[in-house]
Amino acid sequence: MKLSTSQLKYVKSLHQRKFRQKYHNFIVEGVKIAAEVLQTAPDSIEGIYALPEWAEAYQTYLSGLHSKLHLASLVDLERISLLTTPNQVLLVMRTPQPPAALPDIRNSLSLYLDNIQDPGNLGAILRIADWFGIPWVFLSGNCVDPFSPKVIQAGMGAFLRVKTLEINILELTGAFPKTPVFGAMLEGENLFQASLPANALLVIGNESQGISPETMPVLTHKISIPRHPGGGAESLNAAVATGIFCAQFRAATR
Amino acid sequence: MKLSTSQLKYVKSLHQRKFRQKYHNFIVEGVKIAAEVLQTAPDSIEGIYALPEWAEAYQTYLSGLHSKLHLASLVDLERISLLTTPNQVLLVMRTPQPPAALPDIRNSLSLYLDNIQDPGNLGAILRIADWFGIPWVFLSGNCVDPFSPKVIQAGMGAFLRVKTLEINILELTGAFPKTPVFGAMLEGENLFQASLPANALLVIGNESQGISPETMPVLTHKISIPRHPGGGAESLNAAVATGIFCAQFRAATR
Repeated sequence: MKLSTSQLKYVKSLHQRKFRQKYHNFIVEGVKIAAEVLQTAPDSIEGIYALPEWAEAYQTYLSGLHSKLHLASLVDLERISLLTTPNQVLLVMRTPQPPAALPDIRNSLSLYLDNIQDPGNLGAILRIADWFGIPWVFLSGNCVDPFSPKVIQAGMGAFLRVKTLEINILELTGAFPKTPVFGAMLEGENLFQASLPANALLVIGNESQGISPETMPVLTHKISIPRHPGGGAESLNAAVATGIFCAQFRAATR
Repeated sequence: MKLSTSQLKYVKSLHQRKFRQKYHNFIVEGVKIAAEVLQTAPDSIEGIYALPEWAEAYQTYLSGLHSKLHLASLVDLERISLLTTPNQVLLVMRTPQPPAALPDIRNSLSLYLDNIQDPGNLGAILRIADWFGIPWVFLSGNCVDPFSPKVIQAGMGAFLRVKTLEINILELTGAFPKTPVFGAMLEGENLFQASLPANALLVIGNESQGISPETMPVLTHKISIPRHPGGGAESLNAAVATGIFCAQFRAATR
């Protein structure tokens, strides 16, 4: 019931992006999400690090997975966990394979994130995509890692349903030249007056700089969330803005 | 240019809610927000803890405030800062006085937060209120402190314009019995089909439990953000949901 030094070292290495990329693995923590993964994606699990109490309580979920189960003490879990209070169970998962071909975005609403830096924001945005049935979230090369533990935590299981792909926006829009590309801007057409299509690529920019100069020429439409005349804020949080845009796209094209 | 032990101890004590409440002070960090505070609310400043370089660069903003300026070394700023990389300037501000009378909510959109626990969420919600010109955000007694440094950081200057008040919801709705009270729920009328008034109290519940059983009887309307048929998420982040509700209230009653 004690993890080996090499096990501890391996799981802890996954706290860092370079080792997640090297091993194609990432960490998921928590009883609720673990139960969901065990039921819906058991084949993606590489290792289960859990307290004996958890393993006992969830033994019906563990059939066929016993070889991957590593019973751990609370002290061991504290060592490998990223949470201030470690959970009863930590899963090591296999990162999804990138798609063999470019995903077809012509018949859906998709997101393109241009240099999103805050893991809490990226997690919240993936959760938004998961709520509004947006199958693909594309990422510029300089975004925070979608498999970082904080992103996974904030995403509340979005990684099970929403697919991500790092890609240059020119490659994506070049392949689908007729798909409208909407940019979320501070200065643009009023979101609530704009004519919104059901199928589009919605671009969300960096938390402080907005959409990058390189991405700007690709936009076919610029849209804004109007600030109330009595409002004083300079901007909205990037995830909050993404939520408002996605809700309106879905409401307008229901 | 070295802060005294008692100064260090005093500023550091403000990291804790009990000392913020005891001294009626709170901390604001960062060059951009400091410039805004110096220009719009200099009377609320109790102390300025800054690098000499900052004080030199911003000397035109400091007229009349020199007695409050404490030059500090980077090492001292590291001791009093809550940021991983301390900023050039940290302000100690006076907490606003509670209003002498209950604010009149009959002619505005207001928010009531029922047990919001995450400081990043509360900050983002105050920023939403600031964007949508919502003057008052009321808080149940068990919410995270609106003057906690993480809330201030995420609020991006909202504390300068949006007022907060801790109050029991029954006291508030009892005083204004004709004001409609909308509850943000997972099960309620479709937000995009509901008839929304310009003046209302919008209640946002706890991140995992939603609106509390005690608050439920006060609601006059229950509204929801519809999940897309293809969506899988159980819920949206509380701040993201608040943004979608507030945007729709403002768009519907423009």
